[in-house]
Amino acid sequence: MKNAFYAQSGGVTAVINASASGVIETARKHSDKIGTVYAGENGIIGALTENLIDTSAESDADIAALNHTPSGGFGSCRYKMKSLEANKAEYERLIKVFKAHNIGYFFYNGGGDSADTCLKVSQLSESMGFPIQAIHIPKTVDNDLPVTDNCPGFGSVAKYIAVSTMEASFDVASMAATSTKIFVLEVMGRHAGWIAAAGGLVDSSIPVVILFPEVDFNEEKFLAKVDQNVKEYGYCTIVVSEGTKWPDGTFLAEQGTRDDFGHAQLGGAAPVVANIIKKALGYKFHWAVADYLQRAARHLASNSDVEQAYALGKAAVEMALDGKNSIMPSIVRKSNNPYQWEIGYGELKDIANVEKMMPESYISEDGFSITNACREYLLPLIEGENYPPYNNGLPDYVVMKKIKVGKKLPPFEV
Amino acid sequence: MKNAFYAQSGGVTAVINASASGVIETARKHSDKIGTVYAGENGIIGALTENLIDTSAESDADIAALNHTPSGGFGSCRYKMKSLEANKAEYERLIKVFKAHNIGYFFYNGGGDSADTCLKVSQLSESMGFPIQAIHIPKTVDNDLPVTDNCPGFGSVAKYIAVSTMEASFDVASMAATSTKIFVLEVMGRHAGWIAAAGGLVDSSIPVVILFPEVDFNEEKFLAKVDQNVKEYGYCTIVVSEGTKWPDGTFLAEQGTRDDFGHAQLGGAAPVVANIIKKALGYKFHWAVADYLQRAARHLASNSDVEQAYALGKAAVEMALDGKNSIMPSIVRKSNNPYQWEIGYGELKDIANVEKMMPESYISEDGFSITNACREYLLPLIEGENYPPYNNGLPDYVVMKKIKVGKKLPPFEV
Repeated sequence: MKNAFYAQSGGVTAVINASASGVIETARKHSDKIGTVYAGENGIIGALTENLIDTSAESDADIAALNHTPSGGFGSCRYKMKSLEANKAEYERLIKVFKAHNIGYFFYNGGGDSADTCLKVSQLSESMGFPIQAIHIPKTVDNDLPVTDNCPGFGSVAKYIAVSTMEASFDVASMAATSTKIFVLEVMGRHAGWIAAAGGLVDSSIPVVILFPEVDFNEEKFLAKVDQNVKEYGYCTIVVSEGTKWPDGTFLAEQGTRDDFGHAQLGGAAPVVANIIKKALGYKFHWAVADYLQRAARHLASNSDVEQAYALGKAAVEMALDGKNSIMPSIVRKSNNPYQWEIGYGELKDIANVEKMMPESYISEDGFSITNACREYLLPLIEGENYPPYNNGLPDYVVMKKIKVGKKLPPFEV
Repeated sequence: MKNAFYAQSGGVTAVINASASGVIETARKHSDKIGTVYAGENGIIGALTENLIDTSAESDADIAALNHTPSGGFGSCRYKMKSLEANKAEYERLIKVFKAHNIGYFFYNGGGDSADTCLKVSQLSESMGFPIQAIHIPKTVDNDLPVTDNCPGFGSVAKYIAVSTMEASFDVASMAATSTKIFVLEVMGRHAGWIAAAGGLVDSSIPVVILFPEVDFNEEKFLAKVDQNVKEYGYCTIVVSEGTKWPDGTFLAEQGTRDDFGHAQLGGAAPVVANIIKKALGYKFHWAVADYLQRAARHLASNSDVEQAYALGKAAVEMALDGKNSIMPSIVRKSNNPYQWEIGYGELKDIANVEKMMPESYISEDGFSITNACREYLLPLIEGENYPPYNNGLPDYVVMKKIKVGKKLPPFEV
């Protein structure tokens, strides 16, 4: 009977631990077919350095509590394995560690880069004489993985951004007559506007202008739109993606600001946008940068997101036991209203290194808001609330014990 | 039978509408003694310009829904009435409007400046031949009003900051081995560190350094503390108040950053602190500025805060019917654990223009965290969750109809 390896990869989310919970609970239910689940301490680095966490030392209650705990319970990392040609030693090391600990299942929980690593592991294991089933579990707030209808982690960020946009807009609306008329919220999403799009989910009575990375920033058109909103509604809310760029390809966030030593200062896109408006139109502004708050906000998780994250972890184990290799379980949407979905899967070769951008049909013609098609896509993903338990006013999040397995191999430098 | 005037003043909060709900529902219960509640459109400006909202046109369900809706449902304003000597015409105008609409009760829902206006109205009405009972209802996220144990609006911000600090720290903890080691969260609070203090409510296993406005920023000591935390815990979270100052009295947020034209750029304290750490210690950072998100976050309101905001609105009406004038109902703490409180009151002359700072005994000796006394004070204020209802994934917040009463007076310029 083979053991399993599970690792979290890349930026963590509000629900990646729900996938971990799905993997570990499902493996425990099949203890006749699958041995211990070892988790990589800080992701794949834990495998390379043979720092393996023995998840069997974590109680059933604690593994269940992962389901309502944000962040990466076993630690994650930003570490992209090089190509086989560039660093064959790393892949050989992985196989050595898997052999030493009798690991036959490789569950890798991450985004596009991780899918690529997972694909390589799935191809290599056989040629290196130690067959291992490699299954990728999708996770990314950027929602940019292909094949799956959506990515766990995204729905909860989308809910956080939609709710925050709504709440801040209510705030500004009530002050605008004598005070702040402009509120700018900067959101994540790298090169994809999925998260920014969530700001467009608020009621149409709220004037929101969205700046997408997919649309070159047109200062003149933007200022005209903002001014029109202020004149019509008394105020304007702007949701700007961190990836928004000037027509020359530079990020808004890189624009112009220097410290006393002349060094370029990355100050965020939100203050840049706010100052552009102030200079041209004179309106009083406030701005916020949500940064990690948005992807860690388990307190406001979307119920469909939590359920899907868990289901994908569970499906990964079931597919492995079913003999599958080199695949990723995915979300298949069956209907929007009522929202119905089921688990499918795709081949890693179709997933690794492919980025799913916002379709053009999801961005309005003027480039500043979302279309109905986009709204219909997004709404089910923020559906339902899934609150963590609280204790003394704070969420009762769990911290893993992280008991390590004894090392059997010489050290390895990463 | 006299009518009542109610106005919201200054920065709005997640629970000021709960006070409005308390005022209006209680007045409706005493319809034999109190006529219509007129709400000032955009605060006191609504009274001066005779823009009065007839709250009797709002349904019972909508007034109840104010209890779970953030922002100022009738509009608020930043408008401080000048002294009687400087602008007697404004006070005379107020009395004229009150006379014209048979208003005998003045409920003013705000912070320290508003308490001062309320005091003046209470003193003037009699001398101007139109007795009016002026009662102040406390509201401020800054928690800086005297007499009352705490201020409605603060508990919910404190809960938001404590939860956000906890969630972001979990996130950073899981990435710190290979990526971000420093997270800086900028919070509100003006000259008082109450909101920043809430960052200290997280479990002591989380390394949080707080920068209070009450403590001059000591760069050397600060960097040493941050470095020590990174070496011991692998990461460090910093909660910085917007009001934190250098020893020379300038705000951190004003420090050094200039745009391409050489203009000083107000970029927020968080990026300044993050860059100081990066330059001295080299650690990778992320930062967030919560801004309005924190005070509008009704989705994460503290239950004790919501209950107190409502109770104070209710008490204001009951005290008015009891013949009281020139007072503010207040929260009196009876015990910490279990948390017990009751409604008391103070005289406006003891409240107007008095700012309650953090006591020295609430800040740790090194100036970077809170004491147990502070924790015991704060914990009850974030106790309990009070979630709004949701509809299609978003909170079901109410928007008032805002039907205006016919004007009876000539226009007045403010």
